[in-house]
Amino acid sequence: MKKKDTRVEIIATGIELFSLQGYNATGIDAVLKRAGVPKGSFYHYFGSKEEFGLAVIDHFGGVYAAIVATFLTNPELTPLNRLRVYLETGLTRLTHNQCTKGCLLGNLGQELADQNERLRTRLDEIFRAWKGQLAACIEEAKVAGELPQDLDSGVLAGFILSGLEGAMLRAKVMKSPKPMEDFIATLFATVLKS
Amino acid sequence: MKKKDTRVEIIATGIELFSLQGYNATGIDAVLKRAGVPKGSFYHYFGSKEEFGLAVIDHFGGVYAAIVATFLTNPELTPLNRLRVYLETGLTRLTHNQCTKGCLLGNLGQELADQNERLRTRLDEIFRAWKGQLAACIEEAKVAGELPQDLDSGVLAGFILSGLEGAMLRAKVMKSPKPMEDFIATLFATVLKS
Repeated sequence: MKKKDTRVEIIATGIELFSLQGYNATGIDAVLKRAGVPKGSFYHYFGSKEEFGLAVIDHFGGVYAAIVATFLTNPELTPLNRLRVYLETGLTRLTHNQCTKGCLLGNLGQELADQNERLRTRLDEIFRAWKGQLAACIEEAKVAGELPQDLDSGVLAGFILSGLEGAMLRAKVMKSPKPMEDFIATLFATVLKS
Repeated sequence: MKKKDTRVEIIATGIELFSLQGYNATGIDAVLKRAGVPKGSFYHYFGSKEEFGLAVIDHFGGVYAAIVATFLTNPELTPLNRLRVYLETGLTRLTHNQCTKGCLLGNLGQELADQNERLRTRLDEIFRAWKGQLAACIEEAKVAGELPQDLDSGVLAGFILSGLEGAMLRAKVMKSPKPMEDFIATLFATVLKS
């Protein structure tokens, strides 16, 4: 593997293991073993486990932001339909994963918000950017006449993000996609009724 | 301490430490040290750490269900106002705690849903009972004419529980009560508009 590939490979393995078992329970040795990378390599790429955590959050946040953008700026759909397809694709992914893993950002946020201020701050930044993407789509829905003009798009974006995170958490605990189904159906039947 | 008191003391310390640092990161030794209970006592009361985890979840679930019932069956308020006061009291508690800890059930659910099937199943039962309490209050609101008759109270209760869990998670990550404020305001301005 090239140098850059090795770093990305370690990060990708971090995403996988953090998703399955969280940050604290994931040892550096386990990451390297699973990634098939020699033990000595880790500190060549990352100064500490915390630096590795930041790199995993940044990488995942960047990749996920690009995915969200693909959905929420799709010019072939109206803004509200973009949001619907985005959420329904999340439901499909959750069902495909047998309601395991949930949302990596939510998992790490739940685990680390009171334990590690650097990781919390980075997660907060990623959540804010995500909320901003949702708010921009809601603004477009207002311009398109799909939602009332007096809606506060930032507040509504936060409301949707809370519901989405909570629904994924509940789906994981129930091992059923029903919380996500109910979240999407209720959201579009009430708050986002066009 | 009497035998029963010692058991409850260990469980109360478990609630405190699980809330702060999660299940996996909480060692039995740390619990006993903090509770001021001799090391040998633990296995007198609990067969294993998992049994202890179940006891903590059961105890917390029981205490919390009684608190929820106090709010949601208060005969001095209309059903919708009971729900509002319940959620606003949660917001006050979150603010008082400087947006730390969040919801113990949500924290443990996020951490353990993919790791421990016995603990997941118990958490699922507690969540279902909690959702049932919310649904009963929504049914009463329908009877009282505060909400439309065609609302599915189970689906709506799940929607509220998802939003509440997600808002507490986001408040922890942001270290701000704003997600809870926005959740409550949006919920009552849209979904629960009477």
